[in-house]
Amino acid sequence: MKNYKLTIQYEGTKYSGWQTQGNTDNTIQGKLEAILKKMLGQTVEVHGSGRTDAGAHARGQVANFKANTTQTKEEILEYLNLYLPQDIGIVEIEEMPNQFHSRLNVKNKTYIYRIWNSAIPNVFERREMYVFPKKLNLEKMQEAADYLTGEHDFKSFCANKRTKKSTVRMIDQIEIQKLGNEVRFTLMGNGFLYNMVRIIVGTLIEVGEGKRKPDDILAILEYKDREAAGGTMPAQGLTLLKVEY
Amino acid sequence: MKNYKLTIQYEGTKYSGWQTQGNTDNTIQGKLEAILKKMLGQTVEVHGSGRTDAGAHARGQVANFKANTTQTKEEILEYLNLYLPQDIGIVEIEEMPNQFHSRLNVKNKTYIYRIWNSAIPNVFERREMYVFPKKLNLEKMQEAADYLTGEHDFKSFCANKRTKKSTVRMIDQIEIQKLGNEVRFTLMGNGFLYNMVRIIVGTLIEVGEGKRKPDDILAILEYKDREAAGGTMPAQGLTLLKVEY
Repeated sequence: MKNYKLTIQYEGTKYSGWQTQGNTDNTIQGKLEAILKKMLGQTVEVHGSGRTDAGAHARGQVANFKANTTQTKEEILEYLNLYLPQDIGIVEIEEMPNQFHSRLNVKNKTYIYRIWNSAIPNVFERREMYVFPKKLNLEKMQEAADYLTGEHDFKSFCANKRTKKSTVRMIDQIEIQKLGNEVRFTLMGNGFLYNMVRIIVGTLIEVGEGKRKPDDILAILEYKDREAAGGTMPAQGLTLLKVEY
Repeated sequence: MKNYKLTIQYEGTKYSGWQTQGNTDNTIQGKLEAILKKMLGQTVEVHGSGRTDAGAHARGQVANFKANTTQTKEEILEYLNLYLPQDIGIVEIEEMPNQFHSRLNVKNKTYIYRIWNSAIPNVFERREMYVFPKKLNLEKMQEAADYLTGEHDFKSFCANKRTKKSTVRMIDQIEIQKLGNEVRFTLMGNGFLYNMVRIIVGTLIEVGEGKRKPDDILAILEYKDREAAGGTMPAQGLTLLKVEY
């Protein structure tokens, strides 16, 4: 049994997210498993580093799968890229020790959330950005973001209200950049809860609009209640940039 | 009568090119004219700086149209961007003197041709690049390109064999850059003949592959015959970057 690690790019616009759910195969995981089954003649389960939402994208999603095969990794890579739809691509394949697990061994994840902060259209990158033309105060947003770095209970920033698991996570950095008309949020941390990036960005946007003050973040964290935080931003602006082990 | 200048972006993948032809309205010009007619209640003709091929893109196509209207240019811009499909966007509108003509007054055009020079897919920019994974000698390509700069008769690089008009054009610069896995050709000149950019790049690629020598370009120019030059590259890698007046 060999253990393969895949690094995957996808434009998630047309998909119901990473993870296979019930009967739908309109997921990235589902597409990969179907092609691997055809190639290898065996059912393989592809384990992602974590789910990504319907409509969200990835430049460096990581997954692993175990299979018995005489094919070389180069052959597997070529076959996958030949049969995958054009909006999914494998950028790397590596053979890993048997105990490697793409979800359990994650050390750090980096997400970007991209906002097109202009009424003038951006035709070429429109699928990866959320259009939000209102004026944003970037300094205030960065000030608010800095209250979120470090280890905190992010229960207020989690869409799953009933989770009994720990909602404590460590965010190493939130960087907010202005790149032409784009406002880009880069979030690095050891793990992110369900919808956490989208809720954090939604809350920071409200600070940027002047609807909340930067230090409101302290009270939001304290509440430990989803209702305390801001709105959930649409998935289309979200990209999983990389996963580190 | 006011004279409006539009600067237009489009992802040309789904279109039959810039220019309206017969009954099809699957052109950028056709889409613009249909929306302007609805908005202004009069038939307007939109004059482009030049055609772009079916499947080719633009980041800064320029067009002008004349109309009698009490609408402000901001209102026209907003209306167009509201009703245009998402793959076409107006990035600027200006009111010009009556004699301004987007085609007749062109001083310079810049095109880029983008090649994805890797077998590893690029999911996000795939619509704007042509995938060509073979190894290319960029130095030799640049050497060949330099023979093309200056004023020449580009008849060998023109797809329209029967033209009686002058095929003399001035190319100011051809720059070939390696940007990660992308090889990007940037061509600046006072005008380009039908398919000229695609044939120039197709010929330079053959130099890059070692099928032709850089100084073969001199003989190709001398022949003044389309058959002498290399193949025509596919339109999907071609983008009209800007038009200067």
